[in-house]
Amino acid sequence: MSSYVYKTTRRGVLLAKTVSYQVRLCSGNFRHLEVLKDENNVAIVTMKRAPVNSLNTELLTEISSVLTDLEETKCSGMILTSFSDKVFCSGLDIYEIFKSKPSAIGTSFSTLLEVFIKLYGSTFPTVAAITGHAPAGGCVLGLFCEYRIMVQNFKIGLNEDQLGFNAPSPIVKLMINTIGHRNAELALTSGRLFTTSQALQVGLVDEIAKDRTEAFEKADGFLRRFEMIPPLARNFTKQSMRRALLQDVTINREKYTEGFVSMISLHEVQQSIAAYLDNLKNKKRNAH
Amino acid sequence: MSSYVYKTTRRGVLLAKTVSYQVRLCSGNFRHLEVLKDENNVAIVTMKRAPVNSLNTELLTEISSVLTDLEETKCSGMILTSFSDKVFCSGLDIYEIFKSKPSAIGTSFSTLLEVFIKLYGSTFPTVAAITGHAPAGGCVLGLFCEYRIMVQNFKIGLNEDQLGFNAPSPIVKLMINTIGHRNAELALTSGRLFTTSQALQVGLVDEIAKDRTEAFEKADGFLRRFEMIPPLARNFTKQSMRRALLQDVTINREKYTEGFVSMISLHEVQQSIAAYLDNLKNKKRNAH
Amino acid sequence: MSSYVYKTTRRGVLLAKTVSYQVRLCSGNFRHLEVLKDENNVAIVTMKRAPVNSLNTELLTEISSVLTDLEETKCSGMILTSFSDKVFCSGLDIYEIFKSKPSAIGTSFSTLLEVFIKLYGSTFPTVAAITGHAPAGGCVLGLFCEYRIMVQNFKIGLNEDQLGFNAPSPIVKLMINTIGHRNAELALTSGRLFTTSQALQVGLVDEIAKDRTEAFEKADGFLRRFEMIPPLARNFTKQSMRRALLQDVTINREKYTEGFVSMISLHEVQQSIAAYLDNLKNKKRNAH
Repeated sequence: MSSYVYKTTRRGVLLAKTVSYQVRLCSGNFRHLEVLKDENNVAIVTMKRAPVNSLNTELLTEISSVLTDLEETKCSGMILTSFSDKVFCSGLDIYEIFKSKPSAIGTSFSTLLEVFIKLYGSTFPTVAAITGHAPAGGCVLGLFCEYRIMVQNFKIGLNEDQLGFNAPSPIVKLMINTIGHRNAELALTSGRLFTTSQALQVGLVDEIAKDRTEAFEKADGFLRRFEMIPPLARNFTKQSMRRALLQDVTINREKYTEGFVSMISLHEVQQSIAAYLDNLKNKKRNAH
Repeated sequence: MSSYVYKTTRRGVLLAKTVSYQVRLCSGNFRHLEVLKDENNVAIVTMKRAPVNSLNTELLTEISSVLTDLEETKCSGMILTSFSDKVFCSGLDIYEIFKSKPSAIGTSFSTLLEVFIKLYGSTFPTVAAITGHAPAGGCVLGLFCEYRIMVQNFKIGLNEDQLGFNAPSPIVKLMINTIGHRNAELALTSGRLFTTSQALQVGLVDEIAKDRTEAFEKADGFLRRFEMIPPLARNFTKQSMRRALLQDVTINREKYTEGFVSMISLHEVQQSIAAYLDNLKNKKRNAH
Repeated sequence: MSSYVYKTTRRGVLLAKTVSYQVRLCSGNFRHLEVLKDENNVAIVTMKRAPVNSLNTELLTEISSVLTDLEETKCSGMILTSFSDKVFCSGLDIYEIFKSKPSAIGTSFSTLLEVFIKLYGSTFPTVAAITGHAPAGGCVLGLFCEYRIMVQNFKIGLNEDQLGFNAPSPIVKLMINTIGHRNAELALTSGRLFTTSQALQVGLVDEIAKDRTEAFEKADGFLRRFEMIPPLARNFTKQSMRRALLQDVTINREKYTEGFVSMISLHEVQQSIAAYLDNLKNKKRNAH
């Protein structure tokens, strides 16, 4: 049906549908996002915060802002992806939670919950085209969408335990809804990262793609499933299945944020993060 | 063990166990149901509202009434089936919810919830012998039972979204309990109809049969599993697993009915149903 | 890595790690348990109440007492197993609930819930090395752990319905969390016992072992997954996933105990247990 070309941008390659119909850039002026819309009002939102799309407050705020725009312009579907062919998103920016003031940690996490409410609760269908690794918050972004297509040979999972803290309860609930209680508990307690194939098997992703192009074709295929479905009914159904969790996050956002700040501020947790970062540095040094 | 013969009725063929033991018709006088009981007090309830067992208030009331009879006569098991070898049940009678008075829509839906409470909460084991298609309310009837055996090459699912409305929340919860949250959300938002094989794979049905006779043999096999189980314990266990949902429907029946009436009465929903019916008519016309 | 030898005890064989590091007996003085700890502070708790580890109040109290010790001594992991190569645990001691005073039934069940709270809620990782059959309460002990490794060709399941009573609701919830709602309902209403292979397929156990030695190697492998995970984060995650059920049992322990006593005291239930015991006796007599 449609075909794709790669448009080179400052920070990498960005996929755009250009052959069968015109694309246009969304009106917003974003530093870390590129937003394209096709004539069917499907948005492609590409995170482009080099090198690994780590989620700082600025990027999260931009995602939140785009989601508001897409609701207002009655977007008919959204593909969330990364500029990078190695990393979809590395999760919360560790430098906003390591040796940071409680207020900075709180702002970062609270903005993540804002994205939770808007993306998980969006009225339009959403699909993640996961073109690279998706640990921790990267996996969470994928779980906020309705469908996940992942390029082969990468890793995805909620590995927070490895860093010394843990995924907050509404995110745990998302994981339970997606892969079941037993699998979620086993995965989360060990901070397990699934390969793309393992993720498919357990239901953490819905389809595998051999590369970015195929990921987009499949994302497009997912959105086309809804062409004949009255959007009102579709949204009723989606909201009815997501309401309990959305209400929980909306009502308890402050409480969850406080809990996250308390946990991250613990001396033991800061030490664990330090050890993790040291470990990363040593790996990089040894790689040279 | 037992064998089966087909007894011809006015509206189709009706299966009855007659070789190994005597069958007798249940005392009730039903227009849309045939109820047989064998000497073990197992009831075969056959819907026979031609052509497709669409669930109008009258049929639903008869099902509800039979369920009360079966409780009172301490039925030891029930097989729910259809006279037709093409359609198990087509769902709620569309003509009771299209261009209808709110009171008529409400009565129809409230009676469906009455059947929910009695069938899902029955003290005796229940199995659906799904001899044909089971969309929407047809699938729901199957979900009220404890076990589903489906003849190959038909379709089943909650496709309400295709018609422009959505399955009410306790029915969504039934689907989640049966196939899990992720599969349920994907299926319901797209109004997906599963083939018999797909339904088996995802757990929406429990066994496949090649035809009606095999479906009944397997239904009989399911009921025989409980011959050595003390019925009191069996029912305790069943009620304990279904209590939360049964209480929800019992307490909130009026609220759910009002919600359904409001949704169905929306101009957009009535338009979607009209479009769906037009589409059906065109298909029939083109088939001639 | 480590290897195992069998140390003969009065009541059977007991596995102990002895080659790679010294083992020492735990300080407690138990009649029905043998508790070993290795230098990594991993405990091997072996039930040795011959012949089938039926859970009387005394054994349950000892398990509860060990769990308190292990928390206090900051145990880094626990393997729960049986002295027997035929039976892991046969469940609640039937002679404490058959023809017993309500107070005795209540004490037995309430102590099981005490073990529920301590074992399911333990801060350290737990794994069951299921070296034989695990019906009813034997399966429940396994479900309290985080991971189950089962030797091939045995049976496991919640078969309470066969005896005429039913598994109390928090135990049903454990089963739902482990194998899903639909599978749990089908299994529990029919009192199904799964073979080791069937249990693996449905997710009731996590790995199969060919014998006791392999079961211990795999249990050890499971615990090693957590060597690099900060225990604080690990425990946060575990508690967050188990909190709802733990709170339910803690708050409603008395209510659940009363419910269990009422159910077991019913004339019909006592009759069912009598019939079950008669049946067992006849089987034994005929075997001679």
